Amino acid sequence: MTIGAAAKGAGMIRPDMATMLAFVTTDAHVPAGPLQAMVADAAASSFNRISVDAQMSPSDTLLVMASAQGPPLEGDDLPRFAEGLAAVCRWLAIQMVKDGEGSDHAVRVVVRGAADAAEAEAVARAVGESALVKTAINGRDPNWGRISQAVGQALAGADGEVHEPVVSVDGVPFSSEEATEVIAREEYDLEVALGRGDAGAAIWVSDLGHSYVTINAEYHT
Amino acid sequence: MTIGAAAKGAGMIRPDMATMLAFVTTDAHVPAGPLQAMVADAAASSFNRISVDAQMSPSDTLLVMASAQGPPLEGDDLPRFAEGLAAVCRWLAIQMVKDGEGSDHAVRVVVRGAADAAEAEAVARAVGESALVKTAINGRDPNWGRISQAVGQALAGADGEVHEPVVSVDGVPFSSEEATEVIAREEYDLEVALGRGDAGAAIWVSDLGHSYVTINAEYHT
Repeated sequence: MTIGAAAKGAGMIRPDMATMLAFVTTDAHVPAGPLQAMVADAAASSFNRISVDAQMSPSDTLLVMASAQGPPLEGDDLPRFAEGLAAVCRWLAIQMVKDGEGSDHAVRVVVRGAADAAEAEAVARAVGESALVKTAINGRDPNWGRISQAVGQALAGADGEVHEPVVSVDGVPFSSEEATEVIAREEYDLEVALGRGDAGAAIWVSDLGHSYVTINAEYHT
Repeated sequence: MTIGAAAKGAGMIRPDMATMLAFVTTDAHVPAGPLQAMVADAAASSFNRISVDAQMSPSDTLLVMASAQGPPLEGDDLPRFAEGLAAVCRWLAIQMVKDGEGSDHAVRVVVRGAADAAEAEAVARAVGESALVKTAINGRDPNWGRISQAVGQALAGADGEVHEPVVSVDGVPFSSEEATEVIAREEYDLEVALGRGDAGAAIWVSDLGHSYVTINAEYHT
């Protein structure tokens, strides 16, 4: 079976126009019910985990069309197809961040050691959507303080002990000399360990630099 | 009686240093209990209603010192003092936004017609903290779509009917020619009418332009 896909984005440009559109086509023969569940799962771990400017659009669309030209999917074929669909969506979503308005860096914010999944996602979003973190990513500054602040703001009022977050980039301690080389990369993982539990989450974000301002402040309605 | 005050801000620079500090001194003779309540009220309508980058600091401080050198405040003196204290705090808070990192415009986002106070505040924050609205303020673009999007995101899942917001600036319809003159001002009110109820809220925000990026991306730890 084959999966094809195309997408456009990113940035909430105007709510009366299409903003993020993703179309996936496949010859797979898969019933509508399971396919709908697979699409929801794929969206949850791809398009719903990216953020260019934290602004949802009313017209965000992911449409999967299956022509059923191939043989009916059975047994292991179904999870294999679901995996392929999720991988295609994730790849498209990451491309969207890389092509995001004024984006110089596409960073995967990976939170580990959260008390639960909701906390992990909240911390990942707080870090990845902070204007101060995004400008530090743009300026290639290993600014632990801004990440720690975003974590603290997200965990304000949380049960249990809150520790100073341990931050690394592509596995390299944030405070090391080598980190400055990692954060010069176009793409890298920004890992934040909370030490509060076993839950994790990841989101992909772009940075905030002059090119973002140029596109969005000079754009006129 | 006299009220003196000084403050520094704005922007969450580093969490291990003082960020927003405000000190108010007065010769007023006012008991500690009522004074504490007045300070909380004054903070709620001033420092807690400004946002440069939506990032709280762990060291934000408002300290009021009353020397009690004057005669004890009685009767109408107390509300009059509370009003003066709130006015001083509001003035300082607005100055902080005007002096905010890379700020060219200080805009009061005024939400009216919300279902309740919490909704009004949530909408005001969503509008005033949106990167797309802040870049539009910087670019002096009367971008109704970006405001409408922020309102919609804040009201997602709200009970009752959600209408298209009616937007004006200093009383001038956003869609009129005259609005382009208003939004060129250093300070103005951005009024958003929701038509859902009688509650309102106001916050003061700065814009997002090249000077913000220059300060925050070129700053290195």
